[in-house]
Amino acid sequence: MNRRFHWKRLETFCEKLFTKAGLPENDAKIVAESLVQADLQGTDSHGVVRADIYLRRIQAGMINRDEEMEVHYDGPVILLDGKNHIGSVVGNRALELAIEATKQHGTASVGVKGSNHFGTCSYFLQKAIKENIIMIIVSNASQTMPPTGGIRPFLGTNPLSIGAPAGRYAPFILDMATSVVARGKIISAAQKGKSIPKEWAIDKFGNPTTVAEDALEGSVLPMAGPKGYAISMFIDILSGVLTGAGFGRYVNNMYENWEDPQNVGHFYIGIEISKFMPIEEFKNRIDQYFDEIKREPKAPNVEEILIPGEIEHRCRIKKMTHGIELPPKVEDELKRWGEYYEIDIHDALLRTDEIVDEGEESKNAFR
Amino acid sequence: MNRRFHWKRLETFCEKLFTKAGLPENDAKIVAESLVQADLQGTDSHGVVRADIYLRRIQAGMINRDEEMEVHYDGPVILLDGKNHIGSVVGNRALELAIEATKQHGTASVGVKGSNHFGTCSYFLQKAIKENIIMIIVSNASQTMPPTGGIRPFLGTNPLSIGAPAGRYAPFILDMATSVVARGKIISAAQKGKSIPKEWAIDKFGNPTTVAEDALEGSVLPMAGPKGYAISMFIDILSGVLTGAGFGRYVNNMYENWEDPQNVGHFYIGIEISKFMPIEEFKNRIDQYFDEIKREPKAPNVEEILIPGEIEHRCRIKKMTHGIELPPKVEDELKRWGEYYEIDIHDALLRTDEIVDEGEESKNAFR
Ligand SMILES: NC(=O)c1ccc[n+]([C@@H]2O[C@H](COP(=O)([O-])OP(=O)(O)OC[C@H]3O[C@@H](n4cnc5c(N)ncnc54)[C@H](O)[C@@H]3O)[C@@H](O)[C@H]2O)c1
Ligand SMILES: NC(=O)c1ccc[n+]([C@@H]2O[C@H](COP(=O)([O-])OP(=O)(O)OC[C@H]3O[C@@H](n4cnc5c(N)ncnc54)[C@H](O)[C@@H]3O)[C@@H](O)[C@H]2O)c1
Repeated sequence: MNRRFHWKRLETFCEKLFTKAGLPENDAKIVAESLVQADLQGTDSHGVVRADIYLRRIQAGMINRDEEMEVHYDGPVILLDGKNHIGSVVGNRALELAIEATKQHGTASVGVKGSNHFGTCSYFLQKAIKENIIMIIVSNASQTMPPTGGIRPFLGTNPLSIGAPAGRYAPFILDMATSVVARGKIISAAQKGKSIPKEWAIDKFGNPTTVAEDALEGSVLPMAGPKGYAISMFIDILSGVLTGAGFGRYVNNMYENWEDPQNVGHFYIGIEISKFMPIEEFKNRIDQYFDEIKREPKAPNVEEILIPGEIEHRCRIKKMTHGIELPPKVEDELKRWGEYYEIDIHDALLRTDEIVDEGEESKNAFR
Repeated sequence: MNRRFHWKRLETFCEKLFTKAGLPENDAKIVAESLVQADLQGTDSHGVVRADIYLRRIQAGMINRDEEMEVHYDGPVILLDGKNHIGSVVGNRALELAIEATKQHGTASVGVKGSNHFGTCSYFLQKAIKENIIMIIVSNASQTMPPTGGIRPFLGTNPLSIGAPAGRYAPFILDMATSVVARGKIISAAQKGKSIPKEWAIDKFGNPTTVAEDALEGSVLPMAGPKGYAISMFIDILSGVLTGAGFGRYVNNMYENWEDPQNVGHFYIGIEISKFMPIEEFKNRIDQYFDEIKREPKAPNVEEILIPGEIEHRCRIKKMTHGIELPPKVEDELKRWGEYYEIDIHDALLRTDEIVDEGEESKNAFR
C-alpha cells in the first residue's frame, strides 16, 4: 500500500538526511529540492527513489565535499569543473553561471565536467525560465543504449531539455531521455507479464524483441532509430568530448562503479529573450502559439492537445495538495536512512487533516 | 531512364539559371551550390529538384532581390532580417554572422526572420566545421505534421542539425527532419503499392494507418511520438516565436501561397571549440569516441556501425566521380528552364570519357 507524503516536509526530511550525511546545508537543500520536485511533477524515476544511491555514494566517499569547484571564465563561455561534487549541486552551480553570463552577454555556453548524475533537467530549467531566459540543458549519462546497429549499451539515455516562459500558460518545458521509453516501463511490463512494442528494445543478441524479460537482458533503444542515436551522440559530444568529462564508456555507472568518480558532463546554453524582443511581446506570441495548437481538431479519443511541460505542471499542482505517493520499497529505504541518522520519516507523511477528499480508496493511503 | 550529371557542371548550369532569373551572381552561386551539395550527399529531396519552385517564386516576384538584409548586432547576439531574400542566401549570411561572432566572443546566437526555405542545414554546417566551430542550426518550415493528438498539419518538419569536426573521420553531422520519415518515402510506398509502418502517418480522420494512399491524404507524424512533437515545437519557438518570423500557420507554404512572403525563421548557435580545449585534443577525443563506437559488437546482418554524417560523406565522394543521377521529371524541368534562359543542360551531363566503369547498366545511363 502506497502512503502519501507532504512535499515540503518530505523535502525537509531529505534535506536533513543529506545534511547528516555530511553535505553543507545549502547543498543538502538543493539535492532534496531537486528530488522532491521530480516526484511532484510525476517523474518518479528521478525522485526520492534516488536518495538511497546518492546517500550510499556519499557514505562510501565517492562524492567530494571539500575541494572547491573550479570555474574558468572567458566572456560568455564558461567551463565548470564540478570536482566530483554531488550532481544536482554541480548542475545548480552551472545554472547560476549560465544565468549570470546570459544576463551579462545576452547568450552564454557553459560546459561542465567532473559532475555526477544530476536528476531531471527541468529542475534547473524552471529557474532559468523565471529569469526570462530560454535555456537548453543536456547531460550525458552512463551506458544504457546501443548505437544503431549495435547490440549492447554504449550511450546513455542522455537527456535533452529546453525551456521557455509563457504568459497565460505554464512554461514550455521539453525534458526527455533520448531513449524510446524509460527502462522502468519495460520492468513494469515484465512484472505484469505483458509484451512490449518491438521498437522499444533489443535482446542480448541484438534482435528486436517484444518479450519484456528478454529486453531487460538486452538494451532499450534510442528513440526514433538512427535519429535518436544521433541526438544522443551529439549530447555526448557537447557534454563529454568537448568539456573534458567522460563520454561513452568513460561515464561511470553510479550503481556499479565504486572505484572511480562518475565524471558526468553537462552543457548549458542560455539565450536572453529581451535581446530579440520585449519579454511581453514574446509571451504574447508564445501564448498565441499555444492557443492555436490547443484549438486544433483532435484525433478520436483525444481530449486535449498538450504543451510540453503541461502534464508535469498539472501533476505538480495536484501533488502539492494531494501528497506524493511513495511505493513501500522507497518508503522503506528512506525510513531506514531516517533511523540511521535519527530523523523521523513520520513527520513527512500527509496528516489526516490535510487529506483532500478523494473517496475511500485514497483515505486508505494515510492509515 | 535516369541520366547522370557532373556535379560541378550541374552547379554551373543552375548558377546560370539563377543569374538569368535575376539573382546577383554571388547569390546564384550559393543557391546552386546548396542544391547540388544536397544531391551529392544523397538528400535528393532538397537537391536540384527544388530549382523549379525557387525559380518560379523568383519569377513571380515572391523573392526580394533589391532591399538589403538588416543586421541587428548586440555582442554575441544577432538578429538578421532576411528581408525575404532567397533562403539559402539568407541562411548563408546568418552562417557568416554566426561564425564571425563565435570567433569574436567564443559563442554566439543568431536568430533569423524574413527568410525562405533554405534547403539542407548540413550545407551551412560544413562551413562552420571548417572553422572548428560546433554549430547548432534549426529552422522552421511550413505546416506538414500534426501536434500529438491532432489530425491535421500544424508544425513543419522543422529540421534539427549539429555539426562537429573530427580528425581521422568525416565530421559528425546530424541533420534531420523532425518527422518519422520524409513524405517522399510514403509517396514511394504508394507508388509501389506497399503498406507503411503504422508509426509513420495518420489518415485525414486522425487514425493511424498502414495504407500509404490514406497517409498521403492525412499527415506524416513527428518522430518518436510526443518527444518529436516537442522538439519540433522548440525549433518553432527559437526560429519563429523568438525571432519575429512566422511560426505554426504563419510560415507560408512556398508551393501554395503566392501572395505572401514565406517568413521562415532560423536559429544558429555557435560554440568555439578552442575555448574548451586545444582543437587537436578535441579531434583526438572525438576520433577515439568514433573508434570505440565502431568497434562495438554488431547486430545480426549489420556490417558497420555508422557515425551521423558518414552516409552522406560517402555518398558525396561516390557521386563526385560517378555523377548525380536525376529522374527524367527533374531533368525535364531543368531542361525547360534551360531552354527558357538559353542555357544548354547538355553541358552538365557526365561525358562518356568521365564514366567510371560500373558495368553495362551504368553505361546505359549516359546514352
Ligand atoms: N540525469 C540523467 O542522467 C537523466 C537521464 C535520462 C532522463 N533523465 C530525466 O528523466 C526525465 C524523464 O524523461 P522521459 O523521456 O521519460 O520523459 P517523458 O517521456 O515523460 O516526457 C518527455 C517530454 O515530452 C512531454 N510530453 C509527454 N507527453 C506529451 C504529450 N502528450 N503532449 C505534449 N508533450 C508531452 C513532457 O512534458 C516532457 O517534456 C526527464 O526529466 C529527464 O531529464 C535524466
Ligand atoms: N529546410 C527545411 O525546411 C527542411 C525541412 C526538413 C528537412 N530538411 C532537410 O532534409 C534533410 C533530410 O532529413 P532526414 O531526416 O530525411 O534525414 P535522414 O533520416 O536521412 O538522416 C538523419 C540523420 O541521421 C543520420 N543517420 C541516418 N542513418 C544513420 C545510421 N544508420 N547511423 C548513423 N547515422 C545515421 C544521417 O547522417 C543524418 O544526420 C536534412 O538535410 C534536413 O536539413 C530541411
